[in-house]
Amino acid sequence: MESNDLFDSSDSVRSGKALAHVKTAVFPGPIKLSTGRFLPELKIAYETYGELDPQKDNAVLIFHALSGDSHVAAHDANDDPGWWDLLVGPGKYVDTNRYFVICANVLGGCRGTTGPDSINPETGKEYGVDFPPITVADIVDSQRMLVESLGIERLLAIIGGSLGGLMALDWGTRYPDGVAGIVAIATGPRMTTQALAFDIVARNAIMSDPHFYGGEYYNKEVGPATGLAIARMLGHITYLSQESMNRKFNANRNVGRKIDTSFETKFSVGSYLAYQGGKFVERFDANSYLALTLALDAFDLGEDRDRLVAAMRRSMCRWLFVSFSSDWLFPAFQARELIDAAVAGDKRVSYCNIESYSGHDAFLLENEAPVYGGLTSSFLHNLSLDWRPEDAERRQALTESYGKPASPKKTRVDYDRILELIPPKTKILDLGCGKGELLARLKERGHERLVGVEIEERLVLKCVEKGLDVLQLDVNDGLKSFSDHQFDFVVLSKTMQTIKNVEVVLEEMLRVGTRAIVSFPNLGYKAYRKQLEQGRAPQTDPRKNRKWYNSSDVRFLTIADFEEFCKEKGYRIFKEVALESETGVIVEENAAINSDVFIAVIGR
Amino acid sequence: MESNDLFDSSDSVRSGKALAHVKTAVFPGPIKLSTGRFLPELKIAYETYGELDPQKDNAVLIFHALSGDSHVAAHDANDDPGWWDLLVGPGKYVDTNRYFVICANVLGGCRGTTGPDSINPETGKEYGVDFPPITVADIVDSQRMLVESLGIERLLAIIGGSLGGLMALDWGTRYPDGVAGIVAIATGPRMTTQALAFDIVARNAIMSDPHFYGGEYYNKEVGPATGLAIARMLGHITYLSQESMNRKFNANRNVGRKIDTSFETKFSVGSYLAYQGGKFVERFDANSYLALTLALDAFDLGEDRDRLVAAMRRSMCRWLFVSFSSDWLFPAFQARELIDAAVAGDKRVSYCNIESYSGHDAFLLENEAPVYGGLTSSFLHNLSLDWRPEDAERRQALTESYGKPASPKKTRVDYDRILELIPPKTKILDLGCGKGELLARLKERGHERLVGVEIEERLVLKCVEKGLDVLQLDVNDGLKSFSDHQFDFVVLSKTMQTIKNVEVVLEEMLRVGTRAIVSFPNLGYKAYRKQLEQGRAPQTDPRKNRKWYNSSDVRFLTIADFEEFCKEKGYRIFKEVALESETGVIVEENAAINSDVFIAVIGR
Repeated sequence: MESNDLFDSSDSVRSGKALAHVKTAVFPGPIKLSTGRFLPELKIAYETYGELDPQKDNAVLIFHALSGDSHVAAHDANDDPGWWDLLVGPGKYVDTNRYFVICANVLGGCRGTTGPDSINPETGKEYGVDFPPITVADIVDSQRMLVESLGIERLLAIIGGSLGGLMALDWGTRYPDGVAGIVAIATGPRMTTQALAFDIVARNAIMSDPHFYGGEYYNKEVGPATGLAIARMLGHITYLSQESMNRKFNANRNVGRKIDTSFETKFSVGSYLAYQGGKFVERFDANSYLALTLALDAFDLGEDRDRLVAAMRRSMCRWLFVSFSSDWLFPAFQARELIDAAVAGDKRVSYCNIESYSGHDAFLLENEAPVYGGLTSSFLHNLSLDWRPEDAERRQALTESYGKPASPKKTRVDYDRILELIPPKTKILDLGCGKGELLARLKERGHERLVGVEIEERLVLKCVEKGLDVLQLDVNDGLKSFSDHQFDFVVLSKTMQTIKNVEVVLEEMLRVGTRAIVSFPNLGYKAYRKQLEQGRAPQTDPRKNRKWYNSSDVRFLTIADFEEFCKEKGYRIFKEVALESETGVIVEENAAINSDVFIAVIGR
Repeated sequence: MESNDLFDSSDSVRSGKALAHVKTAVFPGPIKLSTGRFLPELKIAYETYGELDPQKDNAVLIFHALSGDSHVAAHDANDDPGWWDLLVGPGKYVDTNRYFVICANVLGGCRGTTGPDSINPETGKEYGVDFPPITVADIVDSQRMLVESLGIERLLAIIGGSLGGLMALDWGTRYPDGVAGIVAIATGPRMTTQALAFDIVARNAIMSDPHFYGGEYYNKEVGPATGLAIARMLGHITYLSQESMNRKFNANRNVGRKIDTSFETKFSVGSYLAYQGGKFVERFDANSYLALTLALDAFDLGEDRDRLVAAMRRSMCRWLFVSFSSDWLFPAFQARELIDAAVAGDKRVSYCNIESYSGHDAFLLENEAPVYGGLTSSFLHNLSLDWRPEDAERRQALTESYGKPASPKKTRVDYDRILELIPPKTKILDLGCGKGELLARLKERGHERLVGVEIEERLVLKCVEKGLDVLQLDVNDGLKSFSDHQFDFVVLSKTMQTIKNVEVVLEEMLRVGTRAIVSFPNLGYKAYRKQLEQGRAPQTDPRKNRKWYNSSDVRFLTIADFEEFCKEKGYRIFKEVALESETGVIVEENAAINSDVFIAVIGR
């Protein structure tokens, strides 16, 4: 990395060029807030991209994070860059040739929308400390007023990361009929205690700055720039990961850059923080920082699992949750809490925990854009397809415009048999669903509820492309996301032999499903017996280049072993199908020897 | 957890009672510092526990962390508690009935040893900004003067955590003949960039406090208490983990405690931080905080691997490194860097990454004390035994006083054969060494170099008890700690069948060892063949209650499979031993069928 990269930042840089595209919606007051207090008027600064369809079914609302603004993307080649140019624009993941994108500055902010530094029409002076406390709900309500004023009753999608993610959660659970799908990125049901603590220290730094004057600093020569800069430095650390900071600064650790600042510049990371802190105070207002972090910190979608489930149960949209493996501001376990709640409420959810070293900021950076962008793009496309399912012509047109039709593929021999074992209209959970082939075939048959679980990121992407609901989870950790008997069938096809915690997974399958369908290679197959007779370990992995030392198969069992296992565990076997995969035929006679793939339907 | 626990802290509370035990060593100046500047005099406040043996071979020096002091433990029942009472005292892990323990306040501190708030004898006033910058080396040098003044030439051990760990590293690499063993806990070769960044923000908070007066605040009515409190709040967050903070504060998240403070007390964690910040400023000096964090931040045992190896190569002591899984101030990967460097320098090292949710502070807390305490206790005991190896009588006496003699155990049948394959005096690495049985037997034979690798914490403890060098690592990650041909033999006894990355591990074994000895169950054994003939998967796991679904065996191979594997990889098989484990005899005829355990010596 070149050293001049060190001072790059994901903040949007907005000059007069960008401001030319900012529109302002004015709503006369009094506007009641969730706290019972009133705003005398509400101005919302926003920008739009693309065209709203006559049917008004292509509107996508994007929520920015704490220090962002309405300038989500450049409007043209001469425009200032937007904070999410990576994602939004003509032909991009959120394709403004196709979608009508809206992005507004948040209430309480300082980038055009009413906030503490706005002029209070009742006094003719800045609100300052008179600006009433706001919540995430107030911010969302204000944006909802904007959306309604644009004549949009139902959004195709909302996309938000970080604070924007909390706002998306709030909208989805309080205005469930107002949106078809939500992409919530790098967010959680609430701040962790650690994240809360950082915000508290940041606010203490601002409020104990002697130039804060209790918030009444607008007419003073000097404001709480020192406190705000310290707050921003602290925030910056939480947006990066340990690894990304080491990568960025380790090479020149002890070489601070000379910049005009009163802060320490001894180490390279010190001069970077001093620079970022100094730049921030030029464009951000301390009272806004306090108001918005207090809104963030107070947000809680549900204090415990039950309340969280109750909140998510109210939603009607499809959800796509994205977390990043190195994000410690909103760690992946928080996304899991949201997903567990959504799944417990039987909502349609997809989830991907993207492998990344970039920390919280990953959602604004290029490295992982193909993944979070690709997921978002596929998700939006499938939302469009689902919007008016009766309009087949429109679906066809959308599908054709979106890309290549799926090529016909060779399918696995056990899938046909498994399909036969699953009655129509039943609810299916497919563990280790891979690219979603089985689920896609079930989808064609019109099953009510289809969910996949897959551990590999690239396969999760494939499933979302197919419009499937898929969760990136490790089945070895159990299925605690799911409720008792949430599904009719839970499928574990040719996966059981690859998992470590067989007992846990089988128990869990029969907790969340009424029936489990398990398929596995039968070690008793004649060819395998022969291999051992000849002094060699049987090679059960269908990928013939895999041997004893590199096969993903780690459990070896015969049909009899499985039957004994079921007996010991008290599982009933309702149906057995023995196959010979080379021919694909069902083996009727002496299956213990003549079949290499065994499928069983079990239950309690 | 009770709510009054929330305000507990690991800080030592020192009243007049504890001060009664503090001794002061005075060294007249000028004392030259590593920067070339001088101190006009040096006073060191220290405490001692137990008695120094006439042979002076039982001295243990303990280094405290950033905000600690000399009062490591209570001297008697009436004394104030010490900051490490868990570890140090009569009959405790660091048994003051046996060891002579010394603990001194650090140079630059404010608890009795010369620091910025001490009176400069040249001016009769506090040093303030005139206190010269210090390094970790200066702190260590000052304590070395103390140790020498006590007539101790060589310490039995140094124990230090966090800053104390850095000091221990510095001593061990600069005064290698001055100490027999070092226990370095929750530390690293340098601060991570993230940790450095937090220190920078903390210093900015102190130095931008208008009551800091450029460090000349001692004669002012008000000092930089606000800045110092903010610095401490920030520090506190880094000492805890995300999980420990959630456990501590989530239940009463929104219930701040009313305390007398100007800081925010809205949330429970906020009032806690305000309380901790406020308490800290009563007992700590802002200039000391600056001086010590600067020393911490500047410490770097070696900027890259080569320099780190060069530094560790200078050491002559045995090392015990301890990290904690949830410590993000000094994360486990930093301990790994130290271990890798020590191992590359062929030093005697043990390492344990203790599973803990308590974060950096875990080394001061009760939960994990049996592990880090137990490791330390065993390590110290074995250092004593090694001190004068010629004195057999003394060894005997120490061993008897320490605990029960080892009971004779049934040993694994393959160990005898493996022992026969290993020539005397060779260097051995045992992968998956378990309780260290094979290594203990090799130790009796007097091998020059014996190292174990084991993944399970409880087994690592057993090895350290036996006085073995053991590293808690996952062999699946490879053996990058070790250099090419660092060992004569690398042993993987009855472990190959349990590992995922067989190819990586075998390659690595033949990189770090000239020969590899591998033993594994032979799937071709007649009993296993018979099991499959009868339609059941062979049960190779010697723990007979383990079956296909819960065995730790995940790789299944015959002798022929292994031979083919070696051929493909270009490994030469120098010796093969086939056993039948029931009888323990070597199988000469038709081993492919008649032996259930196979041992091979391979090389390139």
